[in-house]
Amino acid sequence: MSRRYEDLTGPEILDRVTPSTTLLLPIGAVEQHGPHLPLAVDHVIAHESATAVVDACGEELDIWQLPTLSVSKSNEHAWSPGTLWYSADTMMSILRDLGRGIASTGVERLVLLNGHGGNTTLLNTALRELRLEFGLKTFLVHPSLPPAYGGSSTADELGMGIHGGLNETSVFMHLRPDLVDLSKAERKVPEALAENEFVKFGGSVMFGWLSNDFDADGYIGDPTGANADLGKRLFDANVEHLAAQMAEIVTFDFGR
Amino acid sequence: MSRRYEDLTGPEILDRVTPSTTLLLPIGAVEQHGPHLPLAVDHVIAHESATAVVDACGEELDIWQLPTLSVSKSNEHAWSPGTLWYSADTMMSILRDLGRGIASTGVERLVLLNGHGGNTTLLNTALRELRLEFGLKTFLVHPSLPPAYGGSSTADELGMGIHGGLNETSVFMHLRPDLVDLSKAERKVPEALAENEFVKFGGSVMFGWLSNDFDADGYIGDPTGANADLGKRLFDANVEHLAAQMAEIVTFDFGR
Amino acid sequence: MSRRYEDLTGPEILDRVTPSTTLLLPIGAVEQHGPHLPLAVDHVIAHESATAVVDACGEELDIWQLPTLSVSKSNEHAWSPGTLWYSADTMMSILRDLGRGIASTGVERLVLLNGHGGNTTLLNTALRELRLEFGLKTFLVHPSLPPAYGGSSTADELGMGIHGGLNETSVFMHLRPDLVDLSKAERKVPEALAENEFVKFGGSVMFGWLSNDFDADGYIGDPTGANADLGKRLFDANVEHLAAQMAEIVTFDFGR
Amino acid sequence: MSRRYEDLTGPEILDRVTPSTTLLLPIGAVEQHGPHLPLAVDHVIAHESATAVVDACGEELDIWQLPTLSVSKSNEHAWSPGTLWYSADTMMSILRDLGRGIASTGVERLVLLNGHGGNTTLLNTALRELRLEFGLKTFLVHPSLPPAYGGSSTADELGMGIHGGLNETSVFMHLRPDLVDLSKAERKVPEALAENEFVKFGGSVMFGWLSNDFDADGYIGDPTGANADLGKRLFDANVEHLAAQMAEIVTFDFGR
Amino acid sequence: MSRRYEDLTGPEILDRVTPSTTLLLPIGAVEQHGPHLPLAVDHVIAHESATAVVDACGEELDIWQLPTLSVSKSNEHAWSPGTLWYSADTMMSILRDLGRGIASTGVERLVLLNGHGGNTTLLNTALRELRLEFGLKTFLVHPSLPPAYGGSSTADELGMGIHGGLNETSVFMHLRPDLVDLSKAERKVPEALAENEFVKFGGSVMFGWLSNDFDADGYIGDPTGANADLGKRLFDANVEHLAAQMAEIVTFDFGR
Amino acid sequence: MSRRYEDLTGPEILDRVTPSTTLLLPIGAVEQHGPHLPLAVDHVIAHESATAVVDACGEELDIWQLPTLSVSKSNEHAWSPGTLWYSADTMMSILRDLGRGIASTGVERLVLLNGHGGNTTLLNTALRELRLEFGLKTFLVHPSLPPAYGGSSTADELGMGIHGGLNETSVFMHLRPDLVDLSKAERKVPEALAENEFVKFGGSVMFGWLSNDFDADGYIGDPTGANADLGKRLFDANVEHLAAQMAEIVTFDFGR
Repeated sequence: MSRRYEDLTGPEILDRVTPSTTLLLPIGAVEQHGPHLPLAVDHVIAHESATAVVDACGEELDIWQLPTLSVSKSNEHAWSPGTLWYSADTMMSILRDLGRGIASTGVERLVLLNGHGGNTTLLNTALRELRLEFGLKTFLVHPSLPPAYGGSSTADELGMGIHGGLNETSVFMHLRPDLVDLSKAERKVPEALAENEFVKFGGSVMFGWLSNDFDADGYIGDPTGANADLGKRLFDANVEHLAAQMAEIVTFDFGR
Repeated sequence: MSRRYEDLTGPEILDRVTPSTTLLLPIGAVEQHGPHLPLAVDHVIAHESATAVVDACGEELDIWQLPTLSVSKSNEHAWSPGTLWYSADTMMSILRDLGRGIASTGVERLVLLNGHGGNTTLLNTALRELRLEFGLKTFLVHPSLPPAYGGSSTADELGMGIHGGLNETSVFMHLRPDLVDLSKAERKVPEALAENEFVKFGGSVMFGWLSNDFDADGYIGDPTGANADLGKRLFDANVEHLAAQMAEIVTFDFGR
Repeated sequence: MSRRYEDLTGPEILDRVTPSTTLLLPIGAVEQHGPHLPLAVDHVIAHESATAVVDACGEELDIWQLPTLSVSKSNEHAWSPGTLWYSADTMMSILRDLGRGIASTGVERLVLLNGHGGNTTLLNTALRELRLEFGLKTFLVHPSLPPAYGGSSTADELGMGIHGGLNETSVFMHLRPDLVDLSKAERKVPEALAENEFVKFGGSVMFGWLSNDFDADGYIGDPTGANADLGKRLFDANVEHLAAQMAEIVTFDFGR
Repeated sequence: MSRRYEDLTGPEILDRVTPSTTLLLPIGAVEQHGPHLPLAVDHVIAHESATAVVDACGEELDIWQLPTLSVSKSNEHAWSPGTLWYSADTMMSILRDLGRGIASTGVERLVLLNGHGGNTTLLNTALRELRLEFGLKTFLVHPSLPPAYGGSSTADELGMGIHGGLNETSVFMHLRPDLVDLSKAERKVPEALAENEFVKFGGSVMFGWLSNDFDADGYIGDPTGANADLGKRLFDANVEHLAAQMAEIVTFDFGR
Repeated sequence: MSRRYEDLTGPEILDRVTPSTTLLLPIGAVEQHGPHLPLAVDHVIAHESATAVVDACGEELDIWQLPTLSVSKSNEHAWSPGTLWYSADTMMSILRDLGRGIASTGVERLVLLNGHGGNTTLLNTALRELRLEFGLKTFLVHPSLPPAYGGSSTADELGMGIHGGLNETSVFMHLRPDLVDLSKAERKVPEALAENEFVKFGGSVMFGWLSNDFDADGYIGDPTGANADLGKRLFDANVEHLAAQMAEIVTFDFGR
Repeated sequence: MSRRYEDLTGPEILDRVTPSTTLLLPIGAVEQHGPHLPLAVDHVIAHESATAVVDACGEELDIWQLPTLSVSKSNEHAWSPGTLWYSADTMMSILRDLGRGIASTGVERLVLLNGHGGNTTLLNTALRELRLEFGLKTFLVHPSLPPAYGGSSTADELGMGIHGGLNETSVFMHLRPDLVDLSKAERKVPEALAENEFVKFGGSVMFGWLSNDFDADGYIGDPTGANADLGKRLFDANVEHLAAQMAEIVTFDFGR
């Protein structure tokens, strides 16, 4: 049976979306990912991950899947013609408006499944805004499987395969092989950055960056070894991980 | 070959999206449509119409299809729990942000294909905003075929089958028969309104209304006779009409 | 007796402006109208039309006339030095603020009498905003008499006498003959546009335009044959039409 | 000859509104003024004062009169049903939009003639905003003649005839005698306030107040002795004073 | 004992900040003050004045001192690299947000002690906004002692020692002698301005100005004779004056 | 010598604040921290940490210290009377305005030293906004020393001493011993939360929370064992850590 929110009628909403329900909002992006990947990468991964998770445990956990938000805050790629992006203000307004509509159902839990790293901090901020303004319990999850859960190591990328790199390219090859052209991919790892102790991706000093700050081609990582098999393993493991996260989310109540 | 904008890579955008290209943005809605139709109606119709048009003439006319905007300004249904809606401000910000990204490609023409009547006036306003701010030539088309182009008559609905009525229900039955439950549909035609000379749908006096101003169930029209055959005829004729409109749009230059 | 809202005292408002009252807000513009007409055209026509209607039936229908809003959203003329214009955001804020003040009286009906076509879609959007936010019944009327009600044919202008053309110039000559200089007027009809099937004024494809998109002089129509006699006939017929519209508005209740 | 800005055509603007021109914007209000005066008071006084000044010296000083802004920031009367008021944000947006349009003419000087005291601080703030944003030389004048320039003493009102008091009522009786009903006026002077050394109207401590903070009837002063003769003397003296101010303004250049 | 608001704990707020309490918010600025004074001038003077007043009478009058707002609306110095300034919108948002937090304590009186003249009109506007929105009784005081209260005459500066002039420089020399370099100071008095009858500082015509409108060095007055002794006398007299103002404020109730 | 930005004069800014300079903005908060700590905690720690770092290496690394922002986004404590907080919009506007002023100096690097965890995600978002809008290289550091750099273990708090817990209380006792009352402190550790695998502080699922979601007293951790000695060790180690971070920041250039 469909667990798509938009497939319900108005009157059904009141019956099916209840305080024990959890709503899942996939958030994608339409932004440059280098010459080997299409703009759609984050959108496809967020949408397919959400769909797979809801297929796996939506019925059991009473999850309903909201329509995927295609475009989001991709302004680190504003320099790249064709990238579509909402400003921070627009993005927050979208989330606030959706939160208000969602809260009108009486549902208590909303999960954002975010496929675009550039949104993470804004969405994290929004979690509190929506909790304060509408009383929703709000959560943020990501489709990228951390190494601890079986993801392939990215040591070769010096931990910097963050945009169009090995894992992302592989997962996308699994999902939409027709849209990948590895022949155009090169290794784009800002080696000097790895030597930093503090100011680096995941370092203790956060820093503002645009995707062409490191290299004019605008992707970061080494996709040259990407393959669909790795992508499938990563995707499946990740969906399993998301399902485990969702199982914990649906009963979460602040330890009370 | 795909004519989906988001399937292009960043570098391809510059090659494929040129001044002679036209971009097509489908705009849906996620809003109550009575007890017989799901929230998705406008989203599905906008998306499927756009896809069919691009399939029919996208290659010939050099049209690229943007990702469908699922949610839009549905505040006439704000009273109905579960309807998702962007405020007028949010909606205008979305269009402005998209316009800026689209204009960065060098494209000259943007067409909004709007599936939700509640957006029409705001989108029409936005046409000028985007023209002034970004220099884009902007257009607004609708998937509902007017009677003059072969659509079935709605005289029985007194011309008021405007939300969940005969034609819309039929088209949706053609596209997603599994999601329609006609057994719940009734005739909801505000007969007294038809007696007005000026203040009525399509009358010379425009008026502000919410979808529960006429009837608590929130749909307007008579879907009881809807059927997929009618829906198919309407949909096909409409796609043909949209294709004719697009053919004129792609060379439009203000009569200069 | 005066039916000007602003001539009432604070305490009188509560006595005279009641749920059975209708408030009428004329909306003008201060924008270029070519070399033969002053910036004031839309302001004068909106104001005089409103005054004439209220003189004709204000007492009978319990209408009070609000102060005319002189400036409005004329950004299609932003290229023309001296045109004053409010942005869409400012204009919506003005309407929202006025709506809040108006609703504080307990009145139920507000009619916008709009003299500037560039406002129409935004005002139509505002009708719903004000209905939703303040519970007002809201209406939008226009002073230009449609052909169906006795207006002179504009076939010679190919239906495109939309800004500074025959009818508008004639009406203005009737109202303020001293401010018209027909010797400067020429025929400015974008003939090629009339050949379009869809993308044209009143066509099924709406399009974004600025007033200098067609011709650098920024007016559209053929005012060369304008005269005050025609203007008087148009104005009188239009006031009569507006009065008929108002008579229907003051009892309108959504067909309930 | 008319010195109304809106009576010019678009092409005339470029000829007549030049760097040596000064534009004058009258700003009124539509707000309660007690039971003896209509909502229109500030609007009428601002408009008539501006008109008289321009009649007196507009030709000589090259002043053009902009359309009067009827409604403004009257939120100290928000408690009074029927008062129309723009929020501080809306009011600033209006001024910014007008400033942009005005600056497009190439004019260098803009004078705000403010009839409503509740606007004064916001308009004063706006003077700098418009100077910084558009390079305009900006000025703010008021129609109420200060005692130092021959205005009648308001000692009997303890200097607190600030809203609907003796002078304002008298001036309005001169301009629109039909709209004043002195039989409803009482003395409304907050005597205790006058005993304050610092916190009072014109004292060294500014304070936030609403017009019903002092008395539920919402006017402040003693209009009981008002008369049209006094009003005429005040009005004429004030116009003379405004003309003298304008004469200085039109050559003002920061003492450079 | 400390009378700093931020030294209270959350639970203590409810005990110590009551309806009989007055909160005092010092407001500074970080803006150019010529070559002889640092950016900090207004911040230091506002902070030190507030501290001295609260030391003098905080306990007696039940005043609590809020943290000093360092930066404010200094856009008259936007031309000067390094000046930090909030836009009018940002400044109003800050005040609104602070007002909401302050009102949540149940306190009734808020006093703004403003060290930067460029804020005065905006803060005066904010007094009413905060009164209307949160019900607070709001007040605005300044640390500069007016001549009437014993301040030194600035006749030599023709009344125009308004930014970095004799008095301000002297007070600052008293407070932070190490940060003043009088050797760089010159007389910067726009003499021609003093000849104006209306358009001048404190004249009946308010005008918009930026600090480099008069002289490229951006200060206005004659600091050459400044000295710490004068500064001490001015500062002490001013604190005494502020204390007298506060004594009146804490019982002010609109003369009711 | 002072390294306070606001102690410079306008002309000095151009000499001293150059492309090789780094500006440091401490960001505090004024918010409830339980019954044992004052509202000032985050403000004091941010300010003192920044001051100590600049004392230690400001001269060597060419760092100038901006005035501490006292109040910030503390809306997780909006329920607690007296907490002052800026909305996300206000906070972003403040940062944007400061960024514009800072960029006007020609400086290239701006570091935010954030003392309030509730700001972290918004500030992280702002890093990119300021980089994109003003071209600044932007960084975010925190004064809380991570365990890996010698911080005391908080295993006893199950890793949840996040607001008013052992470390924060100890550091504050070192800095302002007079303002701490440990007798009012209790252990407030949401033990059940620690059993979660994903949804917990630092877990892979981020979640929206208000500080009274866990316990009505609004602090989280176990401050009962706090002491100034531990506080001094933590503070000193942290300053050392911040200095090391700054040393890397001042030459950071994206690995180019």
